[in-house]
Amino acid sequence: MSEPAIEELKLKLKEFAQVRDWEQFHSPKNLSMALSVEASELLEHFQWMTEQQSVDLTPQRHAAVAFEMADIFIFLLRLSDQLNIDLMEMTKRKMEINEKRYPVEKVKGSSKKYNEYDEA
Amino acid sequence: MSEPAIEELKLKLKEFAQVRDWEQFHSPKNLSMALSVEASELLEHFQWMTEQQSVDLTPQRHAAVAFEMADIFIFLLRLSDQLNIDLMEMTKRKMEINEKRYPVEKVKGSSKKYNEYDEA
Amino acid sequence: MSEPAIEELKLKLKEFAQVRDWEQFHSPKNLSMALSVEASELLEHFQWMTEQQSVDLTPQRHAAVAFEMADIFIFLLRLSDQLNIDLMEMTKRKMEINEKRYPVEKVKGSSKKYNEYDEA
Amino acid sequence: MSEPAIEELKLKLKEFAQVRDWEQFHSPKNLSMALSVEASELLEHFQWMTEQQSVDLTPQRHAAVAFEMADIFIFLLRLSDQLNIDLMEMTKRKMEINEKRYPVEKVKGSSKKYNEYDEA
Repeated sequence: MSEPAIEELKLKLKEFAQVRDWEQFHSPKNLSMALSVEASELLEHFQWMTEQQSVDLTPQRHAAVAFEMADIFIFLLRLSDQLNIDLMEMTKRKMEINEKRYPVEKVKGSSKKYNEYDEA
Repeated sequence: MSEPAIEELKLKLKEFAQVRDWEQFHSPKNLSMALSVEASELLEHFQWMTEQQSVDLTPQRHAAVAFEMADIFIFLLRLSDQLNIDLMEMTKRKMEINEKRYPVEKVKGSSKKYNEYDEA
Repeated sequence: MSEPAIEELKLKLKEFAQVRDWEQFHSPKNLSMALSVEASELLEHFQWMTEQQSVDLTPQRHAAVAFEMADIFIFLLRLSDQLNIDLMEMTKRKMEINEKRYPVEKVKGSSKKYNEYDEA
Repeated sequence: MSEPAIEELKLKLKEFAQVRDWEQFHSPKNLSMALSVEASELLEHFQWMTEQQSVDLTPQRHAAVAFEMADIFIFLLRLSDQLNIDLMEMTKRKMEINEKRYPVEKVKGSSKKYNEYDEA
């Protein structure tokens, strides 16, 4: 069920680590730290912007943000490889769960409701 | 160049948000926050484990970790949609950059070197 | 009940922001982002280290880590000022809650128990 | 130079960990993870709010936010104890550095300038 293009990326990333003898550092614990660090580097771009400014990025900022997102995806794929997790499959299953958890008629609209459900 | 399976997921996630009138909350600034929060929920599973324990997860913990990773991927796809970024393409480009930035003969082996290069 | 030394720091940090006309950026939302970014910069130092290496820091690394912690404290104080929160008082109250939540006879010892209680 | 009130808190937190035999889990690496997790729990409160909403918190939300900040401070103090760092002293030193790094006449005002200096 896994996607060929994603499997190919995972394999390339594994080889990249292996040839550098870096797999020894890629425990799930360490990879979760690296992933979180990359997520914060993304966050850093937006910390002092208004929401509107975060929509209207300059081309330079847009490219920098895109590369931070690539870094996050790289560690997400490395971790899914190390833990033998099918990311696409799990994402589809999580979306089905979310469909049931947040029924349209119940949550539609206000940010107040959105927040409450989000924290549930 | 973008992957059909990923494009399909992005579209489903967009519809999920639209039908709930939640797109109003999905500014890049807010999505970067949500993504970072999910990355920390992943981190939380591993915070008191040894590295070895993070490899040898119980089935229950493994499933919980897999769903946290799905949550991260969901917000990564939502953000790539809102900012019109081709995640697969950017990841390939970032991997090419990393190949040049970390030449095998220069970085192979010790964690000390790995750390130094990592921070560069 | 608040500590004079901490109140003095808070005041200095407020003046630092005011004289630069930066208070406009210091909404609680933005400050929580900045605080999280600083926490990840701390995390980054340790991401590829073993636990033992994180104990035995070089003097240079130790100093860098100490300054990251100062950055976290700075944003914690800024936020406590903006939200009018007495950090010392809340910390004492949280410690009393923790005393009751984690009774010694119930949680002492194994990491397994520690993890379970931590997630409760 | 360290503050008696802060030293007292650090000592109480150390005793809390020792009597539960939890110091074995409190390596700097693990504590940096716990601190980052708490910072994200703070972030989570604000992720879907506007900046203005983050100023106008309900009393319930305000209290919850205050306790998250206490959790962050607790791990910051635990880490400063484990690494033998004087948090107040380092914060004063960092503030002096910031005074020089961001001269008023150079950075006053616009968010654009603020962002640029922030990333330097």
